[in-house]
Amino acid sequence: MSDVNRREILGAAAVTAVGLLGVTGRAEAAGNESQQELPTFRYAMEEQTGRVTEGGSAKEATVKQLPISKGLAGVSMRLKPGGLRELHWHANAAEWAYVIKGRVRTTVIAPDGTSEVNDFEPGDVWYFPRGHGHALVGLGPDECHFVLVFDNGAFSEHGTFSITDWLGHTPADVLAKCLGLPESVFAKFPKEELYIPQGRVPPERPEPPRQGMLKSSPQTHRYPLMAQLPHARFPGGEERRVSAREFPISTTITGVIVDLKPGALREPHWHPHANEWLYFITGRARMTLFGSGGRARTEEFGPGDAGYIPQGFGHYLENVGDVPCRVLVAFDSGEYQEISLSTWLASNPTKLVADNFKIVDDMAAKLPDRRVFITTKKGKGA
Amino acid sequence: MSDVNRREILGAAAVTAVGLLGVTGRAEAAGNESQQELPTFRYAMEEQTGRVTEGGSAKEATVKQLPISKGLAGVSMRLKPGGLRELHWHANAAEWAYVIKGRVRTTVIAPDGTSEVNDFEPGDVWYFPRGHGHALVGLGPDECHFVLVFDNGAFSEHGTFSITDWLGHTPADVLAKCLGLPESVFAKFPKEELYIPQGRVPPERPEPPRQGMLKSSPQTHRYPLMAQLPHARFPGGEERRVSAREFPISTTITGVIVDLKPGALREPHWHPHANEWLYFITGRARMTLFGSGGRARTEEFGPGDAGYIPQGFGHYLENVGDVPCRVLVAFDSGEYQEISLSTWLASNPTKLVADNFKIVDDMAAKLPDRRVFITTKKGKGA
Amino acid sequence: MSDVNRREILGAAAVTAVGLLGVTGRAEAAGNESQQELPTFRYAMEEQTGRVTEGGSAKEATVKQLPISKGLAGVSMRLKPGGLRELHWHANAAEWAYVIKGRVRTTVIAPDGTSEVNDFEPGDVWYFPRGHGHALVGLGPDECHFVLVFDNGAFSEHGTFSITDWLGHTPADVLAKCLGLPESVFAKFPKEELYIPQGRVPPERPEPPRQGMLKSSPQTHRYPLMAQLPHARFPGGEERRVSAREFPISTTITGVIVDLKPGALREPHWHPHANEWLYFITGRARMTLFGSGGRARTEEFGPGDAGYIPQGFGHYLENVGDVPCRVLVAFDSGEYQEISLSTWLASNPTKLVADNFKIVDDMAAKLPDRRVFITTKKGKGA
Repeated sequence: MSDVNRREILGAAAVTAVGLLGVTGRAEAAGNESQQELPTFRYAMEEQTGRVTEGGSAKEATVKQLPISKGLAGVSMRLKPGGLRELHWHANAAEWAYVIKGRVRTTVIAPDGTSEVNDFEPGDVWYFPRGHGHALVGLGPDECHFVLVFDNGAFSEHGTFSITDWLGHTPADVLAKCLGLPESVFAKFPKEELYIPQGRVPPERPEPPRQGMLKSSPQTHRYPLMAQLPHARFPGGEERRVSAREFPISTTITGVIVDLKPGALREPHWHPHANEWLYFITGRARMTLFGSGGRARTEEFGPGDAGYIPQGFGHYLENVGDVPCRVLVAFDSGEYQEISLSTWLASNPTKLVADNFKIVDDMAAKLPDRRVFITTKKGKGA
Repeated sequence: MSDVNRREILGAAAVTAVGLLGVTGRAEAAGNESQQELPTFRYAMEEQTGRVTEGGSAKEATVKQLPISKGLAGVSMRLKPGGLRELHWHANAAEWAYVIKGRVRTTVIAPDGTSEVNDFEPGDVWYFPRGHGHALVGLGPDECHFVLVFDNGAFSEHGTFSITDWLGHTPADVLAKCLGLPESVFAKFPKEELYIPQGRVPPERPEPPRQGMLKSSPQTHRYPLMAQLPHARFPGGEERRVSAREFPISTTITGVIVDLKPGALREPHWHPHANEWLYFITGRARMTLFGSGGRARTEEFGPGDAGYIPQGFGHYLENVGDVPCRVLVAFDSGEYQEISLSTWLASNPTKLVADNFKIVDDMAAKLPDRRVFITTKKGKGA
Repeated sequence: MSDVNRREILGAAAVTAVGLLGVTGRAEAAGNESQQELPTFRYAMEEQTGRVTEGGSAKEATVKQLPISKGLAGVSMRLKPGGLRELHWHANAAEWAYVIKGRVRTTVIAPDGTSEVNDFEPGDVWYFPRGHGHALVGLGPDECHFVLVFDNGAFSEHGTFSITDWLGHTPADVLAKCLGLPESVFAKFPKEELYIPQGRVPPERPEPPRQGMLKSSPQTHRYPLMAQLPHARFPGGEERRVSAREFPISTTITGVIVDLKPGALREPHWHPHANEWLYFITGRARMTLFGSGGRARTEEFGPGDAGYIPQGFGHYLENVGDVPCRVLVAFDSGEYQEISLSTWLASNPTKLVADNFKIVDDMAAKLPDRRVFITTKKGKGA
């Protein structure tokens, strides 16, 4: 990030402040060394063309596009009505999803032979365990848009197995033996992966599976996240969260929707146990990634950007735009954990805090004595 | 694999069929690129000389011999009557074994000081947790032959610790202090690893251990797999399986014996949770490994060959010979999981399947509506 | 290690003995090849200057200083009275500690918002889970000295996050918004990490936290190890141990204090499940690391040295000095497991042992028939 870009992002006043605090100062003194060490944690996901096939499209953010994102990856997918993300599985990752727009139907099968059909609307979440076969189809009447999250930054590289790709590379005599049809039939099957063919819009009431009756999954794959009350609500914003506690099948991923009003700040914090992947749905936000050893990097995010915070790294999230900011956040753990700056300071004695910052006790006494979490209030005289 | 070799393996007709389906076609179009990406998953284990010592021999298949096999490795071992695979442990792997021929006795010790002595016959299985000390001795009257499987493809490289190697590299004064014998005695001990010395054939009734009484292991290390009824039996073949459910100590490995009659097919499937290691006991079989992204590789296996399927990769197993085919299969998980092509297709609506393959509903309606698993039936008119 | 150095370490007599057993012999025959393969497992930790700040100092042994120590790292830290190891967390490791000298107070916060304040004296142990925020302060009247152990050999490289470093690299307007003070105040905050500033000596009775009342941690972070009776006591020495069984919060680390009288030997053994990190508190000890494949390395340790034994590698510990030897040992598992040479030999029949070493039954019959563990007795006629 050039100095010019940083100035554009932070604004002139902020740059001055940052300079006072030593970020820019240190970077200049050290020949920008520490700044260079911490790579970008932003990727303009929606600006790429992505993979476009007849029934829809997909844009991905993996370690290839965003090298820091080793633990998690994401895909922004759009399906036309009847667009079919064909039968497939992921060999090396579980799939979690959040629906932004439109309606989509999923079918999923587990190794015990049970399966489930679910319909999703905006604000709903799904989870498919690693390796479970599934398919997605747009229900219409409009295009649907959802964001998929995978608990492996390299999920895409030789990790996604589509049924047309598989059968297209299996000898016809084997298919004939297994599927009970003449070999000649398979010459009509696709030779390569279709990925998202255009199919028919399915009826509102799901059709029965070929085996007649559904062997129902013991745990549901759907959780209506935005239909829940926020677990945390502040004047500046609110947060909804779904971990394995609320959604038992989701053992490896926790999801969060953060809503911040203009000017609101989700205070500095870290997650002891998990990496974090972000997708910015609306609004503009600023984050500083703190990586220890004097390494920090501030970047600004807009709609369609992906972000990534490595496990244990300090960060905050601030709405720096004029409109509400909604962010999808996913962690690669079924358990949610975080420690916030204010709670930490509040759980230590004033004198220890004063000694730590080399400030007088009176000033330390003014620091928060309880959790802040989301705030918009500025210190007086700023 | 050269085109000539592929033709020899698949036969001329099969090559044509494969060509129609695009395997060869794609490879040619892409300059054989994708074909080259997927490495061999076959190793002619029994064709090597292996390590031969006075009491027996061992041939191994590790990541060194079969680079794709990162998760599991195997050893084919033979012991003469009284041949002693000396006291040893594996620092980085658990050991699972299947006895093919003859009789062998094992002694094993756990960190809690408990131990067990077991006698094994053909069809029996053992499991020793990682790092537990053990020894194997041939019981006669004939040579015994068994296949060991390790839950680490690199188990052999600095992972196998034999007692003669250990004591041979420990100062004699330390041994004298620990073992209560004069230093001079240890000059008579082996200086290097004996591996499989020739010992005496032990008596039918096991002798008591030096400490007088056995402190019995809480869980047995032996499971008589072939003495069980098959869990799946079809006209074309049958399968026996032992996971941690049936054999609680085997927490990291599941074993399977597959028996296929000539022409029988274990249908295309994948294992969402585990890597797979194979040893071909009798007969000839064909497998196609499907690795996504248009990558596929077909190879043929005969007696004494080892094979490997990475976690989540699609594959099938077909007896292409004239005699029954028996295959030993081991997974690096104590839990068994698989999803088969027929079950998957049966759990989706016909119209979705038709749209996926771009075939008419009438043809999709003829696809299996229940599990196939093992079959010999060919599609009519093939 | 040169031959001259090895001679200095083992003494002339020992070299002869080792020569007889083949260590030196093999190394010479193989052009010192196997000896070179096994790297040093000793690091003279206290001989370095370390990091010295106004309130104390720290010397570390990580994979950088001791490349073999991939699983665990350690720090020797000293705090002046009032010296404050500031508020910080470790992104990639849990912290375990043993107090050698003086008194120290800790404060720690968990993701659930609970926290604990503990005072430690010599012989006490603490454990902080990965990522939990904590601070340490010297209580006086004298300097305190403790050894920290981390369950990640690379814990230090971008893994330690201090609050002054964090806030010094966070924009002032964000801090103002979060902490409720004017931006100008933060110009007085430290710009870079203070690490161990000098603070005031806290009062004997801990002051209340800023939030008024402590939300108590459900599990204590303190275990008084040396106040316990030894679990094993022999004429030659004794051992105290603390695993997750005795200290439930310590799920990833087990600690041991071994006391050996001059000449005493902790017999050859291995740990099937964990890597081992050692810190030598008093006395001089010899260890031989056995790494299979004929690889062995003997080194001698004195006060302030760190050592490392990879999982499953054979080793012993012998007091070769004139004074008692006390060693701190930590494993990267909450469960303790070991298998000793004597127990193993005792659990096998005499004839099998005789065949294994190619010695006569009468000699094998004299080997231990029960656990030795710690001994000083030499074999007669040595």
